[in-house]
Amino acid sequence: MPTALISSIQHRLDRFRQQQRVRAGSLIMTVFGDVVLPRGGRIWLGSLIRLLEPLGLNERLVRTSVFRLGKEQWLRADAHGRRAEYVLTSSGRLRFEEASRHIYASHAPIWDRRWRFILVVRELDARQRDRLCQALQWQGFGSLDNDCFVHPSTDLEAAFDTLVAEGLSDVMGGLLPLVAATARTALTGSDADLVARAWNLDRLAESYTNFVSDYLPILAELRRDRMASIEPEEAFLLRVLLIHDYRRLLLRDPELPEVLLPADWPGQTARMLCRELYRRLTEPSELHLDTHLLLADGTVPERLIEWAHRFPSDDPLASISA
Amino acid sequence: MPTALISSIQHRLDRFRQQQRVRAGSLIMTVFGDVVLPRGGRIWLGSLIRLLEPLGLNERLVRTSVFRLGKEQWLRADAHGRRAEYVLTSSGRLRFEEASRHIYASHAPIWDRRWRFILVVRELDARQRDRLCQALQWQGFGSLDNDCFVHPSTDLEAAFDTLVAEGLSDVMGGLLPLVAATARTALTGSDADLVARAWNLDRLAESYTNFVSDYLPILAELRRDRMASIEPEEAFLLRVLLIHDYRRLLLRDPELPEVLLPADWPGQTARMLCRELYRRLTEPSELHLDTHLLLADGTVPERLIEWAHRFPSDDPLASISA
Repeated sequence: MPTALISSIQHRLDRFRQQQRVRAGSLIMTVFGDVVLPRGGRIWLGSLIRLLEPLGLNERLVRTSVFRLGKEQWLRADAHGRRAEYVLTSSGRLRFEEASRHIYASHAPIWDRRWRFILVVRELDARQRDRLCQALQWQGFGSLDNDCFVHPSTDLEAAFDTLVAEGLSDVMGGLLPLVAATARTALTGSDADLVARAWNLDRLAESYTNFVSDYLPILAELRRDRMASIEPEEAFLLRVLLIHDYRRLLLRDPELPEVLLPADWPGQTARMLCRELYRRLTEPSELHLDTHLLLADGTVPERLIEWAHRFPSDDPLASISA
Repeated sequence: MPTALISSIQHRLDRFRQQQRVRAGSLIMTVFGDVVLPRGGRIWLGSLIRLLEPLGLNERLVRTSVFRLGKEQWLRADAHGRRAEYVLTSSGRLRFEEASRHIYASHAPIWDRRWRFILVVRELDARQRDRLCQALQWQGFGSLDNDCFVHPSTDLEAAFDTLVAEGLSDVMGGLLPLVAATARTALTGSDADLVARAWNLDRLAESYTNFVSDYLPILAELRRDRMASIEPEEAFLLRVLLIHDYRRLLLRDPELPEVLLPADWPGQTARMLCRELYRRLTEPSELHLDTHLLLADGTVPERLIEWAHRFPSDDPLASISA
């Protein structure tokens, strides 16, 4: 394997390991959604610990994280003698399938031209207001003033479920959800004006640009050395980080309709980069899982055929230049 | 005629005459909508001057007011030799017919459960913002913060037409009109919470209560003295003031759905009071118009039958106690 390729992948892995504070629960959910779900949704805890160890997550951290994910209804523990398997709950599966539609899509969703609003209709104290603003911003909502939050496409019920999961049920009674269509006439402002006012697109663009800077050198290396056989384990680790980073970017991205975005929006480049890199990593990483993703009885679950269609190839867009 | 009746009517007329500043144009539009339109929509200027003189409007004030209403496209002047007739324009007629649906209705409109919003999506300077807030408040809009205005039923295009008529076309490009349906779930706030937050209902309730205090003594007198023959001219003057006051109240009233209003909302009492008093004043006031509402050729136009159905009597609500 050429040195340059090793170093660009190693560089990404090292940077992850050097993070001050790893959100292990979130990373574990990425693993469940991206690699465990396509093999049936369950994994032996010992196997999960082994898979994540090269990313710097020690056994104790993984154990406490899955325990917490169990309390949060994402995972369920199944005892098999002295061994424990962890399984995605049906609600966890639903939530990940919803996320998957965004992560593995070939293009940004088609907009139904309906804005989703959440209005603050009762007084909140300063602490509640801060927590609400942060939680909705994290879900990709934009805002006008502090009483009017807007999103182009979110499922409002799911958005409220997330607020409850984040301990914000005390403010729910003061929020009014609305679905709205613009009734604009020639003289009035446009949806694009709303976007410019309600979102800080510069910050989101910067996040996408950083993502592209992180992964474009790796893609360039993989493209240059078609013969290079990337190590199965490194392909797996890189695939997890790639999808984890991309999933977290999308979480904060309102996925605004393309017509309302600035020209040369980096979100599109990021999507194409992620897709191509993911495709190149799929086969070597599956080799790793074929020997390391184990159930409690030591068997390896097969990859289900219905999961083979992530990042569909019927994408009309040209590939990016690396 | 009993003295008490004279004095309660005289008291109302005197109070009008003593006003510091009469909005003559607005009062003339009330006369056009309430008494001229049902007789064909045109009147000789000399006759209009004579009709309004007992309210303290002098000839010069009426002449300048109709001239201004002509410039504002409400009225059109028709010369007949040396005499001028004023006619409601088709746009003026349309606007009054829209208003009539509210003024002469038997009950509050049925709500389609769609909120109308106007969002401020571009920065406005302080002066523009103040003018906009005032203009929208005058049209019955409520507001959350300063960037989000809401109305339960207004026609948004008509609302923007009014903003343009009020010289606010410079801010139109910064406003986004929306039509929204609430998507509430069990845990979230309600439409009633939005009402409580966005409107100052106390102030509107006070206006209705004042209206009731002004006219209830007159209705009580008319009820007590069924035999009393109120003077035709006084019936006419009182009818004009009654509808003028009520029309101006409705202009500022968002006509919120009854389910969202507090119990004992005085708007309902005001509507019933206005209806009964208007019915009692109709016949005597028409006697006055039969001799004093003249065209340029000195003839009296007949009352058109299609206007006989104001305040329909099929109202299921009980009458008020006076």
